[in-house]
Amino acid sequence: MTRYKAVVAYDGSGFSGYQVQPGKRTVQREIEAALKKIHKGNVVRITASGRTDAGVHAKGQVIHFDSPFAIPPDAFRMALETRTPRDISFRSVEAVADDFHARFDTTGKEYQYVIKRSELFDPFMRHFAWHYPYPLDLLKMEEASRVLIGEHDFTSFCRTKTEQENKVRTIYAISIEQPAEDILTLTYRGNGFLYNMVRILTGALLDSGQGRLTPQGLKEALDAKNREALRSKTAPPEGLYLMNVFYDEFGK
Amino acid sequence: MTRYKAVVAYDGSGFSGYQVQPGKRTVQREIEAALKKIHKGNVVRITASGRTDAGVHAKGQVIHFDSPFAIPPDAFRMALETRTPRDISFRSVEAVADDFHARFDTTGKEYQYVIKRSELFDPFMRHFAWHYPYPLDLLKMEEASRVLIGEHDFTSFCRTKTEQENKVRTIYAISIEQPAEDILTLTYRGNGFLYNMVRILTGALLDSGQGRLTPQGLKEALDAKNREALRSKTAPPEGLYLMNVFYDEFGK
Repeated sequence: MTRYKAVVAYDGSGFSGYQVQPGKRTVQREIEAALKKIHKGNVVRITASGRTDAGVHAKGQVIHFDSPFAIPPDAFRMALETRTPRDISFRSVEAVADDFHARFDTTGKEYQYVIKRSELFDPFMRHFAWHYPYPLDLLKMEEASRVLIGEHDFTSFCRTKTEQENKVRTIYAISIEQPAEDILTLTYRGNGFLYNMVRILTGALLDSGQGRLTPQGLKEALDAKNREALRSKTAPPEGLYLMNVFYDEFGK
Repeated sequence: MTRYKAVVAYDGSGFSGYQVQPGKRTVQREIEAALKKIHKGNVVRITASGRTDAGVHAKGQVIHFDSPFAIPPDAFRMALETRTPRDISFRSVEAVADDFHARFDTTGKEYQYVIKRSELFDPFMRHFAWHYPYPLDLLKMEEASRVLIGEHDFTSFCRTKTEQENKVRTIYAISIEQPAEDILTLTYRGNGFLYNMVRILTGALLDSGQGRLTPQGLKEALDAKNREALRSKTAPPEGLYLMNVFYDEFGK
């Protein structure tokens, strides 16, 4: 058996999320179906760094799986690329140590949230960005982001139903950039993110940019450790991208 | 009755083209359904500058229609925007002269063809560009484009079944640009384009960039006035965008 690590990109708009669910088209299901074809009908399970929700995209999701085949990694990449639908693409495949684990070994993750600020709706971006045609003060957003950076209990920034007990996470960096006219990106790097956390952080930063939430108000909501202490709404899934998963010191 | 001119953008990937066809989802059908709702069940027909094929996009398609309502144009735009699906968007609506005609009055059109040159397939661009990971000599493409500019009989550059009898058209300009890493755009401006013409021109320019077709060979194919004299394949629909329709001297 050889353990393989693969980096996968997918357009989340046609999937009911990453994880297998009965009767639903999911990323995991499509990749496992491709691996089954490659392995002549034998089931090969994959493990990802974490799930992504329906409509959420990935440019750098990481998975691992075990295979009895010792195929050159790039041939394995091509075999998977050609057997998965066009909304999934394999960026790389490599053989790794037998004890590499895509979920347990992560040291950090990077997510990006894309906002389309044009007054008119852009039909080409409807699955790929949040259309937000309202004024934003980027300096206020910067100021608010500094409240969030560091190690905190993020209970106020995750869905009430979140399973994880320990809600302490560290955000290493938040960068706010305008890579093109009418496009704003919020990039978050941290040691891990709770369920819906990036989308709630984004809702709070946009409220800050609109002047509806002060840095002091944001600090109070964080300290309250209660989702209801934060009035900001959860940003929709279509703007969210899992960009990178880190397995080394670089994650920090 | 007031005649209205509207500029419409649409993501062509979910449509069986522009024109109404029984049982198919088309752009014309969706817009006419929205107009019917606005007009309390009365049918309002629209006329476009021309059709676009299945999978082809528009950023500046122009249509006209007549309405008994004298609604402020921007309110009409919003009424249409909110009653059409999210893959159609109205850029503007304006009241025009009663004899304005979206098809007969055009003085020119601009199309853009988008090519994604990255080695790895980009799942986010699968409906929006042609993935073409092969080397291209842009100077050779420039040289070939000069053979095409001007007034010519473009019989060799349209589908054999093309209905129009007169196949003489004038191409005013072809610009070859690289707006981003791995992206190449070919922009064509002319007084009119035959069926599949932009996609065949694109196939021929890429063959030129690959060194498979010399300017001399291209000239001979043009002079032959026969689609079979040109071996280049028709570029796929997903890279093609109708950008602008002109109704004044600017078209030239």
